[in-house]
Amino acid sequence: MAWNTNLRWRLPLACLLLEVAMVVLFGVFVRYDIDADAHWSAEKIRRNISSDVENEFYYRYPSFQDVHVMVFVGFGFLMTFLHRYGFSAVGFNFLLAAFGIQWALLMQGWFHHVQDRHIIIGIENLINADFCVASVCVAFGAVLGKVSPVQVLIMTFFQVILFSVNEFILLNLLEVKDAGGSMTIHTFGAYFGLTVTRILYRPNLDQSKNRESSVYHSDLFAMIGTLFLWMYWPSFNSAVSSHGDSQHRAAINTYCSLAACVLTSVAISSALNKKGKLDMVHIQNATLAGGVGVGTAAEMMLMPYGALIVGFFCGIFSTLGFVYLTPFLESRLRIQDTCGIHNLHGIPGIIGSVVGAVTAAYASSEQYGQEGLVHYFGFQGFKESWTTKTQGKFQVFGLLVSLAMALMGGIIVGLILRLPFWGQPADENCFEDAVYWEVPEDKSSVYFPDTVKASIQSSTPVPSIPMGSSVPIAVPLVP
Amino acid sequence: MAWNTNLRWRLPLACLLLEVAMVVLFGVFVRYDIDADAHWSAEKIRRNISSDVENEFYYRYPSFQDVHVMVFVGFGFLMTFLHRYGFSAVGFNFLLAAFGIQWALLMQGWFHHVQDRHIIIGIENLINADFCVASVCVAFGAVLGKVSPVQVLIMTFFQVILFSVNEFILLNLLEVKDAGGSMTIHTFGAYFGLTVTRILYRPNLDQSKNRESSVYHSDLFAMIGTLFLWMYWPSFNSAVSSHGDSQHRAAINTYCSLAACVLTSVAISSALNKKGKLDMVHIQNATLAGGVGVGTAAEMMLMPYGALIVGFFCGIFSTLGFVYLTPFLESRLRIQDTCGIHNLHGIPGIIGSVVGAVTAAYASSEQYGQEGLVHYFGFQGFKESWTTKTQGKFQVFGLLVSLAMALMGGIIVGLILRLPFWGQPADENCFEDAVYWEVPEDKSSVYFPDTVKASIQSSTPVPSIPMGSSVPIAVPLVP
Amino acid sequence: MAWNTNLRWRLPLACLLLEVAMVVLFGVFVRYDIDADAHWSAEKIRRNISSDVENEFYYRYPSFQDVHVMVFVGFGFLMTFLHRYGFSAVGFNFLLAAFGIQWALLMQGWFHHVQDRHIIIGIENLINADFCVASVCVAFGAVLGKVSPVQVLIMTFFQVILFSVNEFILLNLLEVKDAGGSMTIHTFGAYFGLTVTRILYRPNLDQSKNRESSVYHSDLFAMIGTLFLWMYWPSFNSAVSSHGDSQHRAAINTYCSLAACVLTSVAISSALNKKGKLDMVHIQNATLAGGVGVGTAAEMMLMPYGALIVGFFCGIFSTLGFVYLTPFLESRLRIQDTCGIHNLHGIPGIIGSVVGAVTAAYASSEQYGQEGLVHYFGFQGFKESWTTKTQGKFQVFGLLVSLAMALMGGIIVGLILRLPFWGQPADENCFEDAVYWEVPEDKSSVYFPDTVKASIQSSTPVPSIPMGSSVPIAVPLVP
Repeated sequence: MAWNTNLRWRLPLACLLLEVAMVVLFGVFVRYDIDADAHWSAEKIRRNISSDVENEFYYRYPSFQDVHVMVFVGFGFLMTFLHRYGFSAVGFNFLLAAFGIQWALLMQGWFHHVQDRHIIIGIENLINADFCVASVCVAFGAVLGKVSPVQVLIMTFFQVILFSVNEFILLNLLEVKDAGGSMTIHTFGAYFGLTVTRILYRPNLDQSKNRESSVYHSDLFAMIGTLFLWMYWPSFNSAVSSHGDSQHRAAINTYCSLAACVLTSVAISSALNKKGKLDMVHIQNATLAGGVGVGTAAEMMLMPYGALIVGFFCGIFSTLGFVYLTPFLESRLRIQDTCGIHNLHGIPGIIGSVVGAVTAAYASSEQYGQEGLVHYFGFQGFKESWTTKTQGKFQVFGLLVSLAMALMGGIIVGLILRLPFWGQPADENCFEDAVYWEVPEDKSSVYFPDTVKASIQSSTPVPSIPMGSSVPIAVPLVP
Repeated sequence: MAWNTNLRWRLPLACLLLEVAMVVLFGVFVRYDIDADAHWSAEKIRRNISSDVENEFYYRYPSFQDVHVMVFVGFGFLMTFLHRYGFSAVGFNFLLAAFGIQWALLMQGWFHHVQDRHIIIGIENLINADFCVASVCVAFGAVLGKVSPVQVLIMTFFQVILFSVNEFILLNLLEVKDAGGSMTIHTFGAYFGLTVTRILYRPNLDQSKNRESSVYHSDLFAMIGTLFLWMYWPSFNSAVSSHGDSQHRAAINTYCSLAACVLTSVAISSALNKKGKLDMVHIQNATLAGGVGVGTAAEMMLMPYGALIVGFFCGIFSTLGFVYLTPFLESRLRIQDTCGIHNLHGIPGIIGSVVGAVTAAYASSEQYGQEGLVHYFGFQGFKESWTTKTQGKFQVFGLLVSLAMALMGGIIVGLILRLPFWGQPADENCFEDAVYWEVPEDKSSVYFPDTVKASIQSSTPVPSIPMGSSVPIAVPLVP
Repeated sequence: MAWNTNLRWRLPLACLLLEVAMVVLFGVFVRYDIDADAHWSAEKIRRNISSDVENEFYYRYPSFQDVHVMVFVGFGFLMTFLHRYGFSAVGFNFLLAAFGIQWALLMQGWFHHVQDRHIIIGIENLINADFCVASVCVAFGAVLGKVSPVQVLIMTFFQVILFSVNEFILLNLLEVKDAGGSMTIHTFGAYFGLTVTRILYRPNLDQSKNRESSVYHSDLFAMIGTLFLWMYWPSFNSAVSSHGDSQHRAAINTYCSLAACVLTSVAISSALNKKGKLDMVHIQNATLAGGVGVGTAAEMMLMPYGALIVGFFCGIFSTLGFVYLTPFLESRLRIQDTCGIHNLHGIPGIIGSVVGAVTAAYASSEQYGQEGLVHYFGFQGFKESWTTKTQGKFQVFGLLVSLAMALMGGIIVGLILRLPFWGQPADENCFEDAVYWEVPEDKSSVYFPDTVKASIQSSTPVPSIPMGSSVPIAVPLVP
């Protein structure tokens, strides 16, 4: 494969066409919702908003900002662990998320927020758009290093559509509860991404194997991503929960689950290493599985110890996945999963979906109070006849639908991405920033004491290196 | 120029004198406002604050913290792209901002918050102080690498005064709307900084040209700055808007504009490169222009598509500026703009001011509702006779005044900074941390496998390098 | 000392046992508090929570998230300054904090939040757990690089207990005010950690002296920690203050104190250097002393100028401590304080305790209003007879108790940690990640222009280095 990776026309065209489309569609469809509109409408008075403090903005904005950080810094920096792919990791994630949130505002708007033929947006839409994009970031983790930015944009375009359809089926048709997105975001995103990377299988990827690894500082950059994801995950799982106790409870449960997950990840990471040493890959990823695992159940009456148990097992299974499953997937199933999203989002996503179904099925009026149960699960109107068992059953349907959508969608999108004119890199150039970026010449990134510097500059002219810079190079150890 | 850069007495004296002055002035003038004071005053009861939730603190604190992060981490790390100037970038930015916020609390307090001969401060003052300092951070970007910390403090001292005067003229005399500061912060800050750097023109700056560039990891550090600026910009533009829908709308518009800006920046960056490759400088900077461009209009009924259009063009013009304008400014106008602030704050600031003026001029009661229009623009009292056209006209005056203040102020401050005793670096030592910092000796910042380390240590004694450390050095490629 | 550092069984066992214990104890004891529970209880109605906006969650969640960032990113990255200990700094801090918050929820719960034999948790408990862990992070700074992760877990286990006992004595028995934790968190944490490191004294630590230092990029990573601590400290000191003006005032005072502290730290750092150069150690640490110094008094009517004065002196004493005291402690008192916590938390903690005592003792109804004074200090019920002088006296008792607890507890825990089977590193392997981590092989972390790369690969085979990677090595300067 020696495809043309010069994107001079393709990338600008893709970006500009998509953005012009966004402008037109926003012009036709998107308006402010009542809480963001300057009108002092009768509606506003009728809804009895006596004080600005009841504006949805104040309930959701802090959580929104945390989720925003997770999408851009969290996912972006988590993927900088590759030592020559940091620009692309953080840059392409930035690009896909910036496009994705606009497109998600439209797609999710058409499904959920149309009023008088307009999409009505407010702070909750911004959060949901970030959620939708998070599932694209997950899938991006599987194909990281092997696709061009044009492919990334195309994948985002289709995945946002599929996500929105799946979300509509789950939330509106199956009446599923999934505030933290174990199903809609993580399971869907992970299996979609894994299917795409399966279709894009590269038998000769080992030609760039030496670049598919980290260096010391790139692992520290990745920890920035890990920690911001970890710290803000309680905001993620509680961001769109109902006001009051639901949001409060979702934050507490997520906090507990994540804390437990760190300890079991560390335990298994050390136990599976001959010398008992920890592996940065596990610390960077498996410690987050607890957040995925309580995605669905976080706002339910899971109880703090329930959250700890979920985190406990997510940490174990996720770390085991990195050690045993990822190599198996690559060698046997031809699934090349760069970031190990199957371990961080796939398995814990399924665990989270099942935990959610079970927690719902065994919900009782003792736990929630009678009003609380009816209120929380919405057992009113056409759902009046539902029991918690019905709810649990539909939660399982939600998981199955998400998996089916991910597989089918992934195959179609994968085939589209396999077309040979999207500027994808050759096998020997994967995981390499220089294909798509102007990469700065090395100035050795290190600091010389003046004495050494002087001797270098005076005595050692270096051919074909710009004057004044000094490059560390490898030479035989024995002269 | 071989000036003395030893700041042993000058920097400590400057810091201590300024800080003592702050203590004295705060002692004489600064008190808590009613929402931060422990008194259960009649006033508090009269204002009918029935619940603590109406305390201004809860409306503004989350936005304040986001703005705070933008000033210290955002601007600080954005400027770490220079490979030998990271300490100074983040350190001097820290110093100037820490001094600037205190001085701004006083200056802005005298202009806006005097009550019974005291300056009354609360959370909104902290945000405004951060805003004022943001304009100093902008200007600092132009002179980065070429000034001493003493000069930075002096520039901050004067710029905070000029900023506050300009802000007073705009907001109080011209009744201009500028919540996100396209005029007061960005246009003023950028042209002030550009004027200063013009006055400080160094004809022989090419002597340190090899240091005015990035390395791989310094570009990743800079992306930390970029992303925190990008993510929190909605908080920046909405932080001091009126409660409720204004704040809500400002956040939505800024989110939209920034998203659009990323796509057009990427498009132009790739289109202008021979091989279609992206340039980190554009991704780090031009992607932010959308936030500047909606600064004034963000809280207006700009509509989401309006915001997208603004971001669309800001991304394009900003990237074009980096490619064509910055070299022109340097070679023809002798303006050495280290960070390209003209492209990130100058041009988009002017665009934002004009967009604000036009949006105000064409505001209608259809968009805002009759009460909304009067309420938002304050067409009451002596402004009762104003039309939206009047408002638009005054917005333009605001831009012109800001430019005039920036140019005049920049000339005066530039001349002061040219005095030869502020410890500025020689031309060949610009962009060099070691002039003002104890820089750690290199330990090669990299990790050796034990086998290699052993061979190195046993076989290759290195003259004049401390024992145990190993330094990569340049040697001829052909023995 | 050639102890076995293979933790293959010890670390996993420690993690799993502790986590299983957490699950069991949470199952038996921990329940949601009323604001996080789904029940629509009579209690809830009786407390007249008419709107969800009065849910404690909305008062505290933004502050909680900021504190969370300080514990995990702030402390974690602050300690990455060591050039070969970044993984351990950020990773062990992650581990200890994740365990510590669970254990603290239990310990603090038993002391303060038991209701019907259950511990009732809500958002405020999460903040307090983070606070408790912050004191462990402080102590960890003293022993950084010299302990195994098993030792870290053991220290955390005991320190959380001691912290909770001390906190109970101070807050509940001595009725001390300490919202920002100058006494409970900083003084206790610092002197506990210093005592432990004294007991663990290593006479031959100079064998790894060459690793106990920073490189250029590790100092920049540390600045990420510094800045997030600095920016979010106003949230730290105000997070658990009473609603309304107390919280508001605490944020303002901390903001002022920190700003002043930066200027005096810079001043002293430059003044004490022969060439007037700044030292990164001071900028990374001493600039934060102002936050510690107003911990106790931040929510009092300290006045903004009072806060400036506190920050002013904390910056000075902290920097002086780094220059003069740390070497003295090491050479004379055999206290090896890796991060200089005595200067950042010890001295400023004592200053903060004294400032708090004095501010309380001289509080007057003129400053607070009569109702304000009674309300703020709780001079009701059995405290009705107290004067502000009594309060001040008890504040001093609080400091003395904290110091006594720290010293006694530190001796006991230090002796436990000295047992030879915890996997501690030998003297020559301190400050070395490779002891406990799989450290990535060096790929030189730098970027070679293609031309150079080609010549290297063709002409210079390097023995015992994996193919495709190139390692910078030290060679004699003169062939």
